[in-house]
Amino acid sequence: MGADLPTSSDDLRGAEASSHRRLWRSEEPLSLALGGELPVLEVAYETWGELAPDGSNAVLVCHALTGDSHAARHGDDDAAGWWDGLIGPGSAYGIDTTRWYVVCSNVLGGCRGTTGPASVDPRTGRVYGPDFPVVTIADMVEAQRRLLDGLGVGKLRAVVGGSLGGHQAMTWAITHPGRVERCVGIATSPRMSAQALAFDVVARNAIQSDPAFASGRYEAGGGPENGLAIARMVGHITYLSPESMDAKFDPDRHEPRDIRTAFEKKFSVGSYLAHQGQKFTQRFDANSYAAITVAMDLFDLGRTEAERRAKLEPATCHWLFASFSTDWLFRPAQSRQIVDTLTRLGRPVTYTEITSDAGHDGFLLDAEIAVYGPLVNAFLREPRAEGVEPLRDADRRLLEMIPRDASVLDLGCGDGRLLLELGRRNPDRTLAGVEVGQRLLFEAVEHGVDVVDHDLNLGLPGYADGQYDVVVLNVTLQAVRNTRQLLAEMTRVGRRVLLSFANFAFRELRDDFLRNGRSPLSKSGGGAYDHHWADTPNRRFPSIRDVEELLAEMGIRVHRALYLDTTRGVDVAATDDPNLNADTAILEISRR
Amino acid sequence: MGADLPTSSDDLRGAEASSHRRLWRSEEPLSLALGGELPVLEVAYETWGELAPDGSNAVLVCHALTGDSHAARHGDDDAAGWWDGLIGPGSAYGIDTTRWYVVCSNVLGGCRGTTGPASVDPRTGRVYGPDFPVVTIADMVEAQRRLLDGLGVGKLRAVVGGSLGGHQAMTWAITHPGRVERCVGIATSPRMSAQALAFDVVARNAIQSDPAFASGRYEAGGGPENGLAIARMVGHITYLSPESMDAKFDPDRHEPRDIRTAFEKKFSVGSYLAHQGQKFTQRFDANSYAAITVAMDLFDLGRTEAERRAKLEPATCHWLFASFSTDWLFRPAQSRQIVDTLTRLGRPVTYTEITSDAGHDGFLLDAEIAVYGPLVNAFLREPRAEGVEPLRDADRRLLEMIPRDASVLDLGCGDGRLLLELGRRNPDRTLAGVEVGQRLLFEAVEHGVDVVDHDLNLGLPGYADGQYDVVVLNVTLQAVRNTRQLLAEMTRVGRRVLLSFANFAFRELRDDFLRNGRSPLSKSGGGAYDHHWADTPNRRFPSIRDVEELLAEMGIRVHRALYLDTTRGVDVAATDDPNLNADTAILEISRR
Repeated sequence: MGADLPTSSDDLRGAEASSHRRLWRSEEPLSLALGGELPVLEVAYETWGELAPDGSNAVLVCHALTGDSHAARHGDDDAAGWWDGLIGPGSAYGIDTTRWYVVCSNVLGGCRGTTGPASVDPRTGRVYGPDFPVVTIADMVEAQRRLLDGLGVGKLRAVVGGSLGGHQAMTWAITHPGRVERCVGIATSPRMSAQALAFDVVARNAIQSDPAFASGRYEAGGGPENGLAIARMVGHITYLSPESMDAKFDPDRHEPRDIRTAFEKKFSVGSYLAHQGQKFTQRFDANSYAAITVAMDLFDLGRTEAERRAKLEPATCHWLFASFSTDWLFRPAQSRQIVDTLTRLGRPVTYTEITSDAGHDGFLLDAEIAVYGPLVNAFLREPRAEGVEPLRDADRRLLEMIPRDASVLDLGCGDGRLLLELGRRNPDRTLAGVEVGQRLLFEAVEHGVDVVDHDLNLGLPGYADGQYDVVVLNVTLQAVRNTRQLLAEMTRVGRRVLLSFANFAFRELRDDFLRNGRSPLSKSGGGAYDHHWADTPNRRFPSIRDVEELLAEMGIRVHRALYLDTTRGVDVAATDDPNLNADTAILEISRR
Repeated sequence: MGADLPTSSDDLRGAEASSHRRLWRSEEPLSLALGGELPVLEVAYETWGELAPDGSNAVLVCHALTGDSHAARHGDDDAAGWWDGLIGPGSAYGIDTTRWYVVCSNVLGGCRGTTGPASVDPRTGRVYGPDFPVVTIADMVEAQRRLLDGLGVGKLRAVVGGSLGGHQAMTWAITHPGRVERCVGIATSPRMSAQALAFDVVARNAIQSDPAFASGRYEAGGGPENGLAIARMVGHITYLSPESMDAKFDPDRHEPRDIRTAFEKKFSVGSYLAHQGQKFTQRFDANSYAAITVAMDLFDLGRTEAERRAKLEPATCHWLFASFSTDWLFRPAQSRQIVDTLTRLGRPVTYTEITSDAGHDGFLLDAEIAVYGPLVNAFLREPRAEGVEPLRDADRRLLEMIPRDASVLDLGCGDGRLLLELGRRNPDRTLAGVEVGQRLLFEAVEHGVDVVDHDLNLGLPGYADGQYDVVVLNVTLQAVRNTRQLLAEMTRVGRRVLLSFANFAFRELRDDFLRNGRSPLSKSGGGAYDHHWADTPNRRFPSIRDVEELLAEMGIRVHRALYLDTTRGVDVAATDDPNLNADTAILEISRR
């Protein structure tokens, strides 16, 4: 039954205080962003690995809503950490603690060792309770900064966080641009969606309308247990996906576990929620829950592109974002908003949406960490050059058409081989890729290339007019549905576009079709038409003439045309019927 | 700000008791499905229109969770009803009250006039409160049946309901098959998803853990106002879609309305929820809310296909279902489960998923009613024959290949013209269509043809092996991505398949391509290839030879092949190179 099944990874969030937990204390008052100050700051933290003598290997890990400093176990006999799958010794981990010095601290306003509403106000000698001032994500980051200063950590190779941890990571990048080299946000957002915010409001209302809340002045160990449990139940539902809930609770819907509870236990999911809600009240403080959720709800990188741009502009680091397809609390489209803004700012950013049934909880689950962990691992270290697919002749010809200093966006960039070669020729220029295939995208990141996971059929809304000197579409035109839209978008975003495509009217294909009356198969044109008709990923079968006519019709100008017969390794002159004699065309085009 | 914006249609659900409300009373004890009985039954109801002398025009409307008998206004000066957009005088309404005699009653267990927990138990002289027995949807239907008997209504032309109202409508069809001709379920489900159930559990926990609940023995007018308000807040979020919440509350997120409330009013969505929550407590009884949600949560047509089949088997009516694309409380896939089961049972059923941003609330909103209202209107009355596209010659040839008594499934049936002609030739046989285009599907329903909204790229999971004598795929093969899967699925579901398709290797296209080196355009083959290469909905360009080779490879047997040159109106002999000389092929095929 539900409560016995593998439950939400959230169970891990409540791991008991590890013996490796340390306390850092500062008597310097902390002024808070929204007013008020804390005369004394205590921060509970843990570290893994060793700080390099040159201080170059520090990684700050930021926890989510109800997490704590115990991100990972410190040894086999240590209690489980909430990100054990990601953080550990050896290259099998996303964050290898033999290489990186990892720091994780409980957030300001928390109740797992760091100063929060359940702490004693030294000015009064009483617990802060409802008098704890409103803290923001910026205040949490300031507390972390002081801790890092205290630990002698200067630069951060990376700040890494999921969900609310992502909010902290981004705030680090914005407020300390000189200190953060890389920023990783997993399942995060520019601000809470109205729906997610609404659930937080309901959760706080449940806490605060519980008479035992007593305006926040409840006794330690007491408090609004019903309200906090209900808040937790709401939260739990939002962490899971509808798919994972059905899988977990539907087969035995009417067989709840008979737990001791005053809450309803009619259905399997009911006894599970009762169990989770009650358990949570034993390890979390209600005022702290309210304080942290308010900080999260106030976090705001802006609703509009312009607002986000202004907020993110100061950040100069290198970015990685990952989202989960079934996450409805921090939706992929929200990660995408951040990515689009950074893209328009010309900042290096990689993004992937991971297909998963796990919902928001995905960022904490081993199955999902097995997918995104290697990406984080690759993103933190130096790129690998091996394993790159060799360039084809037509690719080399295309590369020759790109000026040495040009910024380049490669649409459908595959494993990044074109961009990698461009980067070799001039490491200082701006290069970016788009790729919808996850395996290829991950390979590109291994090679140190920045790629955004995006379906070209949706156009290029994330890119600004004339943002790149050159946009490349290389043997991809035939697989795109919205042909006209993509041509319009490419020539909007690129001052020049290099359009390399296979010619379906190439002599070999034409002859084959004429003679055999079958959809032809051919290795010509980069293998674009080397697919059985019933299985091909292609949607379009254009000839050179088809494409050139369409460009003319759309008012797109062709500056240069290269026609190649790659099957014989020769150029085809424009006067020698390239529509018959070339298997590949490379057109340099622009909007006008 | 939020609370001033157009809010959820749910505001309408609480319309004050209309002067048209009537009370029907029965002293005959009502035995309940799960035990216990009610010695006296009172049912609040309203009616619209006149019952025809032959009793043939009665339509029962069933309300959702917090609705009541006031489904529509009875005149311009009457209070607004919750389904005013659907029910009214004239053919502009989905349910035309000049034609139909409409009855709507408050559900058993409700608090809007019908016997429920807030009623007085005549045996004790006290309010039932927590002693009100558990009622089910079947009990609600039994109360409605008694009312209809009392009103002299025998047969029902239709039972119509959305959400929980759909549960009642389906239960009517199952328990009174001889009485229900048609059943309409809008935004409904075979049972609550685990997620939806979980939200109901949280809502009841909020009510029942409120100390003012007092184990359900609160005073009339008092009660667990905080808990009920929180339950309502949770409900409200689930009725809206993330998209509609962002649109409503995000532009002015930080500008809440300053309402009188003890609940949080920090954010625009917060003051909205506080307002809705508080308002609700003034018109709804907490015990009733718990009772009705439990009835909804216990409603269960089964988790598996086999379970649903057993439950739905007794129902013999004609079915219509509609869902909304962004409804995450009653997901389209859940409507689809019911539709698939009915399909496998061979029952006449039409289904459409309506694209909408409104979420579950869509079934109550005028914008969405404007879309599905005409469908309901068409479904209730006799079909129209006019406006059907004329048959092409190739269609007539295909029709001739279908035995007079054969059951037929037409995949990609368009406006239903083939099925309509088959029905004319023999009205007693089983006919069904599949169409993903909403406009075409609606036209088919106008013509009295049953069509299911389904993407053929997903295969035919809703259909049983050998379910139809003949499955037809008429000029659609070229638009399908998963060609092999669809061929396998069609020959699984149909004992015979008639595959009519355009030949891409037809002389005219081949010549055109050879001569011009352009993707050819042609009106041959039913116009399948009459699309510009950059805009075509087609994904495949097979020749007769391509298709026949693929069928052979898949072990699919061709029993008969008809090759047509429709451009000249002649048959092409198999010996006369049909791959060159025919623009259309009709193959009769089967699995072996």
